[in-house]
Amino acid sequence: MDLSRSLYGDLAGGDTAAHEHLSDAAFLGAIVEFEGALADAAERAGVIDPAAARAAREAVAGFEIDSVTLTDIAAASAAGGNPAIPIAAELKRRAGENTGGIHVGATSQDAVDTALVLCARRAVGRMDTALHGVEQLLADLARTHRDTPVMGRTLGQQALPTTFGAVAAGWLEGLSHAAGRLRAAADALPVQYAGATGNLVATHPDGLKVHDLLAEGLGLAAVPVVWHTNRQPLVDVGLTAAQVAGAVRKIAGDVVAYSATEIGELAEAAPGGSSSMPHKANPAAAVACDGYARRTPALASTLLDSLDCRWQRGVGSWHAEWQTLRDLLAATASAVSRIRASLDGIRVDTDDMARNIALTGHDLNNIDTGHAGDIVDAALRQQEGHHDGLRDD
Amino acid sequence: MDLSRSLYGDLAGGDTAAHEHLSDAAFLGAIVEFEGALADAAERAGVIDPAAARAAREAVAGFEIDSVTLTDIAAASAAGGNPAIPIAAELKRRAGENTGGIHVGATSQDAVDTALVLCARRAVGRMDTALHGVEQLLADLARTHRDTPVMGRTLGQQALPTTFGAVAAGWLEGLSHAAGRLRAAADALPVQYAGATGNLVATHPDGLKVHDLLAEGLGLAAVPVVWHTNRQPLVDVGLTAAQVAGAVRKIAGDVVAYSATEIGELAEAAPGGSSSMPHKANPAAAVACDGYARRTPALASTLLDSLDCRWQRGVGSWHAEWQTLRDLLAATASAVSRIRASLDGIRVDTDDMARNIALTGHDLNNIDTGHAGDIVDAALRQQEGHHDGLRDD
Amino acid sequence: MDLSRSLYGDLAGGDTAAHEHLSDAAFLGAIVEFEGALADAAERAGVIDPAAARAAREAVAGFEIDSVTLTDIAAASAAGGNPAIPIAAELKRRAGENTGGIHVGATSQDAVDTALVLCARRAVGRMDTALHGVEQLLADLARTHRDTPVMGRTLGQQALPTTFGAVAAGWLEGLSHAAGRLRAAADALPVQYAGATGNLVATHPDGLKVHDLLAEGLGLAAVPVVWHTNRQPLVDVGLTAAQVAGAVRKIAGDVVAYSATEIGELAEAAPGGSSSMPHKANPAAAVACDGYARRTPALASTLLDSLDCRWQRGVGSWHAEWQTLRDLLAATASAVSRIRASLDGIRVDTDDMARNIALTGHDLNNIDTGHAGDIVDAALRQQEGHHDGLRDD
Amino acid sequence: MDLSRSLYGDLAGGDTAAHEHLSDAAFLGAIVEFEGALADAAERAGVIDPAAARAAREAVAGFEIDSVTLTDIAAASAAGGNPAIPIAAELKRRAGENTGGIHVGATSQDAVDTALVLCARRAVGRMDTALHGVEQLLADLARTHRDTPVMGRTLGQQALPTTFGAVAAGWLEGLSHAAGRLRAAADALPVQYAGATGNLVATHPDGLKVHDLLAEGLGLAAVPVVWHTNRQPLVDVGLTAAQVAGAVRKIAGDVVAYSATEIGELAEAAPGGSSSMPHKANPAAAVACDGYARRTPALASTLLDSLDCRWQRGVGSWHAEWQTLRDLLAATASAVSRIRASLDGIRVDTDDMARNIALTGHDLNNIDTGHAGDIVDAALRQQEGHHDGLRDD
Repeated sequence: MDLSRSLYGDLAGGDTAAHEHLSDAAFLGAIVEFEGALADAAERAGVIDPAAARAAREAVAGFEIDSVTLTDIAAASAAGGNPAIPIAAELKRRAGENTGGIHVGATSQDAVDTALVLCARRAVGRMDTALHGVEQLLADLARTHRDTPVMGRTLGQQALPTTFGAVAAGWLEGLSHAAGRLRAAADALPVQYAGATGNLVATHPDGLKVHDLLAEGLGLAAVPVVWHTNRQPLVDVGLTAAQVAGAVRKIAGDVVAYSATEIGELAEAAPGGSSSMPHKANPAAAVACDGYARRTPALASTLLDSLDCRWQRGVGSWHAEWQTLRDLLAATASAVSRIRASLDGIRVDTDDMARNIALTGHDLNNIDTGHAGDIVDAALRQQEGHHDGLRDD
Repeated sequence: MDLSRSLYGDLAGGDTAAHEHLSDAAFLGAIVEFEGALADAAERAGVIDPAAARAAREAVAGFEIDSVTLTDIAAASAAGGNPAIPIAAELKRRAGENTGGIHVGATSQDAVDTALVLCARRAVGRMDTALHGVEQLLADLARTHRDTPVMGRTLGQQALPTTFGAVAAGWLEGLSHAAGRLRAAADALPVQYAGATGNLVATHPDGLKVHDLLAEGLGLAAVPVVWHTNRQPLVDVGLTAAQVAGAVRKIAGDVVAYSATEIGELAEAAPGGSSSMPHKANPAAAVACDGYARRTPALASTLLDSLDCRWQRGVGSWHAEWQTLRDLLAATASAVSRIRASLDGIRVDTDDMARNIALTGHDLNNIDTGHAGDIVDAALRQQEGHHDGLRDD
Repeated sequence: MDLSRSLYGDLAGGDTAAHEHLSDAAFLGAIVEFEGALADAAERAGVIDPAAARAAREAVAGFEIDSVTLTDIAAASAAGGNPAIPIAAELKRRAGENTGGIHVGATSQDAVDTALVLCARRAVGRMDTALHGVEQLLADLARTHRDTPVMGRTLGQQALPTTFGAVAAGWLEGLSHAAGRLRAAADALPVQYAGATGNLVATHPDGLKVHDLLAEGLGLAAVPVVWHTNRQPLVDVGLTAAQVAGAVRKIAGDVVAYSATEIGELAEAAPGGSSSMPHKANPAAAVACDGYARRTPALASTLLDSLDCRWQRGVGSWHAEWQTLRDLLAATASAVSRIRASLDGIRVDTDDMARNIALTGHDLNNIDTGHAGDIVDAALRQQEGHHDGLRDD
Repeated sequence: MDLSRSLYGDLAGGDTAAHEHLSDAAFLGAIVEFEGALADAAERAGVIDPAAARAAREAVAGFEIDSVTLTDIAAASAAGGNPAIPIAAELKRRAGENTGGIHVGATSQDAVDTALVLCARRAVGRMDTALHGVEQLLADLARTHRDTPVMGRTLGQQALPTTFGAVAAGWLEGLSHAAGRLRAAADALPVQYAGATGNLVATHPDGLKVHDLLAEGLGLAAVPVVWHTNRQPLVDVGLTAAQVAGAVRKIAGDVVAYSATEIGELAEAAPGGSSSMPHKANPAAAVACDGYARRTPALASTLLDSLDCRWQRGVGSWHAEWQTLRDLLAATASAVSRIRASLDGIRVDTDDMARNIALTGHDLNNIDTGHAGDIVDAALRQQEGHHDGLRDD
């Protein structure tokens, strides 16, 4: 078991699938993977010979990131300030006499950035399943309760009735908006291969060829050519992930509010208990969702701050990204996983919804919910449109 | 003169054009404007009669937001918690006996949200001119210095030479990326017209018709139908503005670094002086740019936090947006304005660039800058592509 | 009327007393005030002659910050990057031939930092009245309802009964803790007078004498001697202000929750109405409190970020402080003012408290609230202790 | 080896001593420890009998947090939403028939909060050694270079000379200020023992006695009695840790700046290399310090945000603290550790300092550094005063 993601970023959150791509082992493993793919690309571009490429591939194939190598690399990272240096050194040691296929024309940031991109894309890909699941649950709620009256409330006060379907449709719209942006941002993540100062001087005049072949080999975008100090692509992913987290946090907070003892309109299928108070039915999954999601706005601000890089490499700002982006994606994945658990099988108490509407004197036989049904229909249509445009991968 | 934007959000930053749409007076004025447009739309939809619409239009036309009305509205806002209530009340007072055309079927949040959208769109529109100016200046630098050698530096240390054009091309790519997203987010900002609990019950069955006509009248998007508690459209604008601010902050920090006495490779055309030290040539515009821009990541995190709305209206989260989004856009506009001042006429000292390259033993007659020129060309081509897709408005 | 604090930082928040020290006019006025006090101190230290000091005092006395001078200074600030330069220039112009008493041995940052300190101290001083008022209201609630049963709730669920006095005591403890720290931090704010690079070279060997006399003259602390790039004293004020804001936000959120239609245990004395829904009784003051307070954590993070200054002066980080600290204090003052309005005369519905306790089957004649009363007593005793140690000013 | 702190929060940062108290295993272990100490306190208060206490102690003694139990607890945490529930359940299983000594009168939050306090106090205690080391290194630099001329620089521009001792003294003052506050905040962290709704009803009338004995047994403060929703004590620790991180980040940024190739005034004793550029001497430790420290302002804002708890327990805000506070302390400890490595043996190139001063025409035989020496002396005196007041533990 890989414990290198922390407990509340990983295990208790439940989204093991996404988190396994965000662990330290996955991150370092992706650096190794970059080196292997680079050897392939450099060989195809004619920059290195087949023997060198073969030696590199063999070194890469034999290099497992287990707890021993992880500790060694971490310790060795302190000297140079990043993990690509000791990994390249270890690969060269393993390649023996023929080291020409390792780290060809690359700088540490090429390896680390591409590895972070690979981790982020895979984590988002895995999160996607859960996101689709949540969108489906919300669409079902919206459809089923298109015409179920529920009290509308603003600032904690009862306002006028609407339908629970319209509430769920609003949840759906917020989440679909954000999820669509996250998917697009992850799909656009580019390879990084630009060399020591970003002009591929070491592999010139074949550098751009290697760059494009490497992008192809790893299934990554190739624009912009170099983004050592243009961190916008990574920031796009981080910000849209925080938007996803915010969208599910809205739902979670509402679930907690609807589940309050005095309201009683929703109840999680498997509420949390209390050792001392057996009557409690805590909306534990929604609460946990909020706990994960509310960490994301600040993490997003750290990423925004790292747009400020100096010269040809971020000073500290680059280093801060490695943990921050993974933490942000892990918290988002956990929040998504928890809201799915919260919504899956959630009990909608239409009787209590009716009872509460009556509190402020409405005639239950004559509830006017205006365009609520139309709004549900529009949201469901738009949701289907969203899905038509989605990639399959 | 409108002083309701603070000194360092407005006057010293220089972008008066964008800021005038972000002032309190502009914000309240846009609420009044919403009411006028709503009367028009309601009349066209047949929800109110021409006389009511005319009375509303006249009330709106006579209502100027000056310092007296602004103070009155502000004081009156405390009671209800938002400025739409006293504005609607004042309009009704002015409409006299025929108040049926004021605030038709609307809730306070409809007026406030739409007003904020109008302010944001206009401020971004005005910022656009400056953004295009900066992009042009960067493209010129990239083109002019496509092959000008400059030392590449990482972590403060000289690394290997590249070209100053490649540096400027990197600046351009980061900014174009962010600016494109900001424009798209601003263009997508929707009207808000959904009524007390978001289902347009008061104008049902004509509510959606009014909604669409209102969007048309104000030139705003009409999707989603209701976003009282789905704040993603506003968050999109805030986050992409922060990305723009981050992009120009990167440039500003580099200008300061290149202008250091011991480096001397860049100098602002009109550097700031010092009362006590006449030899100083402070890159004052770049420093100010950084000062504005670095406030934006945190403001963006506040907006992300406001995705968590409760029930059918944000509790505090909605109220926090009014100041935060305007502060964020104002800081971004000032940062853009200041980087434009910094880059306009900036002196590139190619002699000092050469002198510094020689420091680490490079032969100035034989500088290899790899693919730097290709990278410049790619960035300029992509920049032109960006512009082909731009709206004209 | 000074509109240079924005509407929702000032007028609608109601704490005009604190905000008037945070306006642009107050800030620039405090720079002028610094120059006057510096002339006094320099004269007393024998660094300038009485005639020069007199000329400086006259220039200062005749320099009012009105909307015209404010606009001029703002425009002129762009060139040098801070407002102290044009103010010193204007004072010299006014002093005519004898300019030797203006800006003696000072650098711009001396004037600006000291001005910010003066504004912050005064704003906190004014806020103190409101804070004491809130603490008094909370102590009264705790005392009055020491034994009033109310349902304890966790995660939205009814848990076990406690007393409303214990709830209010908890509010009081959080606020007193934070308010005490804010007062201490404001009291410790030092003068800034250190000269161009922080060693008072221009007034050496009398620089420290001037420094101490200036501190005395302005009633400020004199430690540390120079803090141009040690921003901890300012950060202390900002962080503790955010802690105060967080403390009142906790109360505000609870007031909103207790005031929910389905709970009905609290009601503001003057709740906000709704144009379309006359039955609504919005806890408008509490909601506004939350709206102000929730902006403060992010503003505090910007201040923390500005601890990272470069060399002998912050690059952008210094400039970002001017707006951020004032925004943070203004938001805090408004939040405190609004919670005071919320709590003043708040209606405690003990019948509804009893009714809700009965919902989960408790026998109202036999409610065990454990140590609730003891906890109230302890909080009240501690609160009195806090006040024994308070300064009077 | 415990990998549950992530790579860049732990291993590469080098402060294994502080981090081992911040791991998931340490956190869960401290919950177990709380239960053992509670059994002791309850026995001493006469609330449970010796047999029950003994059974509890044996259950605690046999419960090791290894990777298996950690995974089990994490998985089981999902149901109830916190790890105290499965730990108490497991202890009861181990206690067999006599479970009366487990979790006596406690609620989950009592166990989790106290555990977090224990982790935080221990981590800060371990960090203290490194902090003292850094303060010593800075005091040495200030003393040694009290009169060593170095160019003062503002906004990247050469200003006027000062001494390197004065620079180091400024670093020292900022760090001592923050470190003193962090120590005080950690020392003041209270025990949490208040029961289900914060009034110790289950152990009434002996609850406060158990509370005080538990505080005594764990060596923790006992004020306030209950702070389930008054998070100020934890926030104090988090904010002051971020102030420490900011203080060392200032130093780190300056080390990077002084080490720039074109400046050359400082060099780390063991600079980082580059695989492709052998001439590079990266200030790798300072860069890593910055990378850790710059994550802390945002994490601090998340803690400030968690002051907003609802009712008698934070909804999500409480859950977000567990990871955030540990991340913040881990990043701070790593930043401190890295600045110590950076400063230890740092090479001060007084020749290059002199050379650079000459660049702007100063006569090296006649450098006036004003009160620089006095400022150094004052800082060293104050530093000694700080240490006189320090606890020994």
